[in-house]
Amino acid sequence: MKTKIGILGYGNLGRGTEIAVAQAEDMELVAVFTRRDPAKVSILTDNVPVVHVDEIADWADKIDVLVLCGGSATDLPVQTPKYASLFNVIDSFDTHARIPEHFANVDKAAKESGHVGMISVGWDPGLFSLNRVYANAILPDGQDYTFWGKGVSQGHSDAVRRIQGVKNAKQYTIPVDEALEAVRSGKNPELSTRDKHLRECFVVLEDGADAAKVEKEIKEMPNYFADYNTIVHFIDEDEFNKNHSGMAHGGFVFRSGKTGLNKENNHIIEYSLKLDSNPEFTTSVIIAYARAVKRMADEGQTGCKTVLDVPPAYLCPVSGEELRAHFL
Amino acid sequence: MKTKIGILGYGNLGRGTEIAVAQAEDMELVAVFTRRDPAKVSILTDNVPVVHVDEIADWADKIDVLVLCGGSATDLPVQTPKYASLFNVIDSFDTHARIPEHFANVDKAAKESGHVGMISVGWDPGLFSLNRVYANAILPDGQDYTFWGKGVSQGHSDAVRRIQGVKNAKQYTIPVDEALEAVRSGKNPELSTRDKHLRECFVVLEDGADAAKVEKEIKEMPNYFADYNTIVHFIDEDEFNKNHSGMAHGGFVFRSGKTGLNKENNHIIEYSLKLDSNPEFTTSVIIAYARAVKRMADEGQTGCKTVLDVPPAYLCPVSGEELRAHFL
Repeated sequence: MKTKIGILGYGNLGRGTEIAVAQAEDMELVAVFTRRDPAKVSILTDNVPVVHVDEIADWADKIDVLVLCGGSATDLPVQTPKYASLFNVIDSFDTHARIPEHFANVDKAAKESGHVGMISVGWDPGLFSLNRVYANAILPDGQDYTFWGKGVSQGHSDAVRRIQGVKNAKQYTIPVDEALEAVRSGKNPELSTRDKHLRECFVVLEDGADAAKVEKEIKEMPNYFADYNTIVHFIDEDEFNKNHSGMAHGGFVFRSGKTGLNKENNHIIEYSLKLDSNPEFTTSVIIAYARAVKRMADEGQTGCKTVLDVPPAYLCPVSGEELRAHFL
Repeated sequence: MKTKIGILGYGNLGRGTEIAVAQAEDMELVAVFTRRDPAKVSILTDNVPVVHVDEIADWADKIDVLVLCGGSATDLPVQTPKYASLFNVIDSFDTHARIPEHFANVDKAAKESGHVGMISVGWDPGLFSLNRVYANAILPDGQDYTFWGKGVSQGHSDAVRRIQGVKNAKQYTIPVDEALEAVRSGKNPELSTRDKHLRECFVVLEDGADAAKVEKEIKEMPNYFADYNTIVHFIDEDEFNKNHSGMAHGGFVFRSGKTGLNKENNHIIEYSLKLDSNPEFTTSVIIAYARAVKRMADEGQTGCKTVLDVPPAYLCPVSGEELRAHFL
């Protein structure tokens, strides 16, 4: 019996989820829910209905796990608790500072309705969080380092696009090689914001805009760019469309920690991701955890869960016996 | 109330466990058990008794988790099931092929006595296994690569030492840079044994031994060296003792996998360790999992467990709330 997956929201994450479900032999997509006119939403899978979200309650008994593919700013804080009262749900809520509040809301709704609601699944938060927790538990005396990139920062791209005279823009966050190497070699460096990441912007100007003025405005923008070394390239729209529409991303999590009677031994744990498609990888993580949601719900667990609560074996479609024989 | 740890066996792993317990604020060492004459075993911690293993049953109510620090070849297959009938136990059993059999024996003993017995904890098996499982669950369509080193292989060092004319020897397993880079760049290479690792030997000869003959014998040794590129250095005993007594090790686990409608996107997950002291790192992992053993036992769980069964949060001394606020 396959796990029945529903998707709410059909943007990059919704489409990525659909593709990940198709790659999972033990899962099937049963419906895509949208706030738009369903007739105008065209999905990739044959014979799966697109349904208006107003009718979602009719599907309460037909879906094992509902994957919430909305945004963290305004969608998920409302949707995840709301739909946890009808379904087992999973989301990729990524506003780190608001996770405790989101957890409390989802926990309440999911416990009251007897469902599992899993939040903040993806790679950061998600796989990077896991690695921070494992590494801190193993090396209590040490230092954490996280680097992001090379990849597009949506927030920084938006900030550049809001500047007068900018027609379009993409901002790449790039980890500084020297900083990575210093961490990797066990030097335990103290790194400033500027030491860790470069920011590189590709900007298409409006006709007649003043490039020097735009560049200055980018580089001096507080919070977003002022504390970084920033490189600005002006390019035309053709080049922008041709070379800057990708969704690659990645990053690095390190822990460097000491053991020994006199703390004489240093150990470095490094975890890194190099992703051609940020949304497709994120949804691949979500679908693995949707498998765990189903299993935890089948066991009678309820309430809000995160990746930190899930035994790794629960992510796999094969038995513990097979895992021990082949992966341990 | 601190978790009470006992140690059985006081070699490199036993001493590493002792040091790791000292670094863990929520744990205390209550006894070290030995097959030797306790009067002749001198440990690092003050006011902790060294007890002969024949008296271990007297400690059944005084220890939360007994850490078994014997070898995988002959000690652990006997000890882990045996002591699982008296204690919650944890071991670092690392004979991959015999894990299913060891699991079954420990599971039976631990279930009958109502204890938790955790096996095969360390970095491989252990953290590397975890990473293989996570990465396979997330990227079902892909390829795994594991590299070991740079570090000492005990088995290969022993094999060289058994050659006539060899007084002492150390063998380092070294991952081949080109192979690492090919995997890291997403080329999904097919790699032969020879492509992946170099073997480098530092050999001290007996007086009058024939270096050319020894070198030939090493390089042609089936299973151990014949399938590898092997470098042999002859050095004197002083240099050997000065430069080759370290216990550094490490390695890399990769998964390279594809997503997308036409599998057009490649993703690379890389996990690596660079360890100054193999036994101290291994026991740091064991002590983090000993925390989980205690917690699972307190919940009433029984039977054999592996790292694949443990939610990451169980490794940490802090609450789920604190973990979500700081690590997620």
